[in-house]
Amino acid sequence: MSTDPAEQPKKINSASAKKIVARRKIPIDPEHLATQVINGNKTALSRAITLLESRSKKHLASAQQILNHCLNYSGKSVRIGITGVPGVGKSTFIEALGDFLTKKGKKTAVLAIDPTSSQSHGSILGDKTRMQSLSVNPLAFIRPSASSGSLGGVAQHTREAIMLCEAAGYEIIIVETVGVGQSETAVHSMTDFFLLLKLAGAGDELQGIKRGIIEMADAIVINKADGENKNAAQQAKKDFAKALHLYPPKTSNWQPPVMTSSSINNEGIRAIWEQVEGYLKLTQDNGYFNQNRKNQNTYWLHQTIEDAIKNDFYENPKVKEKLPEYLKQINDKKSTPFQAAGKLLNLKK
Amino acid sequence: MSTDPAEQPKKINSASAKKIVARRKIPIDPEHLATQVINGNKTALSRAITLLESRSKKHLASAQQILNHCLNYSGKSVRIGITGVPGVGKSTFIEALGDFLTKKGKKTAVLAIDPTSSQSHGSILGDKTRMQSLSVNPLAFIRPSASSGSLGGVAQHTREAIMLCEAAGYEIIIVETVGVGQSETAVHSMTDFFLLLKLAGAGDELQGIKRGIIEMADAIVINKADGENKNAAQQAKKDFAKALHLYPPKTSNWQPPVMTSSSINNEGIRAIWEQVEGYLKLTQDNGYFNQNRKNQNTYWLHQTIEDAIKNDFYENPKVKEKLPEYLKQINDKKSTPFQAAGKLLNLKK
Repeated sequence: MSTDPAEQPKKINSASAKKIVARRKIPIDPEHLATQVINGNKTALSRAITLLESRSKKHLASAQQILNHCLNYSGKSVRIGITGVPGVGKSTFIEALGDFLTKKGKKTAVLAIDPTSSQSHGSILGDKTRMQSLSVNPLAFIRPSASSGSLGGVAQHTREAIMLCEAAGYEIIIVETVGVGQSETAVHSMTDFFLLLKLAGAGDELQGIKRGIIEMADAIVINKADGENKNAAQQAKKDFAKALHLYPPKTSNWQPPVMTSSSINNEGIRAIWEQVEGYLKLTQDNGYFNQNRKNQNTYWLHQTIEDAIKNDFYENPKVKEKLPEYLKQINDKKSTPFQAAGKLLNLKK
Repeated sequence: MSTDPAEQPKKINSASAKKIVARRKIPIDPEHLATQVINGNKTALSRAITLLESRSKKHLASAQQILNHCLNYSGKSVRIGITGVPGVGKSTFIEALGDFLTKKGKKTAVLAIDPTSSQSHGSILGDKTRMQSLSVNPLAFIRPSASSGSLGGVAQHTREAIMLCEAAGYEIIIVETVGVGQSETAVHSMTDFFLLLKLAGAGDELQGIKRGIIEMADAIVINKADGENKNAAQQAKKDFAKALHLYPPKTSNWQPPVMTSSSINNEGIRAIWEQVEGYLKLTQDNGYFNQNRKNQNTYWLHQTIEDAIKNDFYENPKVKEKLPEYLKQINDKKSTPFQAAGKLLNLKK
């Protein structure tokens, strides 16, 4: 349950009333909160993101007002998506990358998409203690995935949180995925550069990576390339580099490199960042960077609309009732999928 | 314009009236036509497919009645999707495969998905003279993509045509794509085995193949592996085989092989067919074959519904009018994609 005061139930007993009144001394003033966000106030930024994720209509309205104030200050960061299966070392890698970037003086925010957090209570990415050094770094902002619900909802919150972080002056936004469901596609569609972490040796079967992810990657990093793993990592690097050359070229004209890194030895991070910079130079020069951001905006507009109208259709009681029956008819060869679709569409007319 | 009598305009001059009356001697009797289809009558099969593609409501109703009669006889073929960019030698390959299969006594039908045929008047795949030997083979049925319109419509007609061909006793259905638009995804979603034809040497850039297609393939065939091309084809085969091993395993548990073929020398066809048979054995044993067909039915049910409701939304005059304005607002940072989506969704309420 939320600890935000305005989310408490209206009917309260007198014992807790005082406490809430005391808390209410900080009212939600969207314009003021937006100004604080724009001034780089981390507490205000956290609070604004919490409002985005709230289920209260009043909070959501405030959140949208804050967003509107911040919109003009957004868009100026470099957005990096990072994916890889559990155990690949994402947290340690992100901490090493964050340390490297903040040492260069770059304000860095770390967000996460975790549609599973409603089941796991955020245990996968919600554990702030994972990035101990980065979480106390004054130039870094770490926000675990707190929101629950559908991927669409979680993705919207994360994308809005990116805008708020940008308004707060964060130059690099790292968005981490848990690598389940369709979260990679969502993160790929809201970032400029998409990085896939892999392990040497372990087959993809063990790594559980989904088909299609390799084609999305702007760089593949063989992680944990240290100790006994070093030779295997070098071999994996060669194999992947060769394989990637068989792929059709990307629209960005970028040829994704394959690299190795050892987060624990702090090796490889600088070289990886140089690749990101090379990518930015190329795509800002050839126009892909801006075009891609425009395409992403259009994508999210249509995605949101289509999620809503599909939800509206499938949540219709008549459709819900008849759908299993029609599916059975198709499998029993009593109807074609197109005939069944026609009947279901007629139910809503 | 259609030459089918029932599609002629109702008001006609007396000169052409006689001719039409003469043609009308063959009325559409769905039950009779269905019986003829089930008896393997090629003319009836052609006629039934033409009805599926008609724009007349009366014809469409007849077509659906025919389908209903045929449904119980459908589903017993092996459906092979074949893709590759123009110039890769699809027609010659399919002719060689068709000759091989019919020599084994297998009734083989060749269909095509060509959403561009409305522009090209069917010139890409509509040219029956392409497969000269197969087109006169009594065990073969070749149907060029005659239907025009959206990919959704073309895909539906092709999928319904598959069912009719199956009812007519065709054991192997080959569905060819032109390799443009989303036609590969459509064909992949209506076939059991998806074969990608490639050329050695030419980079994918030249071949124009789309990202994601390689991951769909159940086999990659390096075509035109003859003459001076032979060594390059062997090298390409090795490279692709190595690359495919880096992919995550398929749900079917099938490891896609890479092979070579020379359609003009009739080489490789037998080995390719043995792979198809190996695939069928594996997937029929492990249950994937039937599960995949069920999933495809569900996919087409939902795809048809979602196409219809999206079309309904975006064709709404208010939405059509406002969409460009809201897109501009997003790119001008005056609105988020989610806010714009909300406004557009409200227009239809």
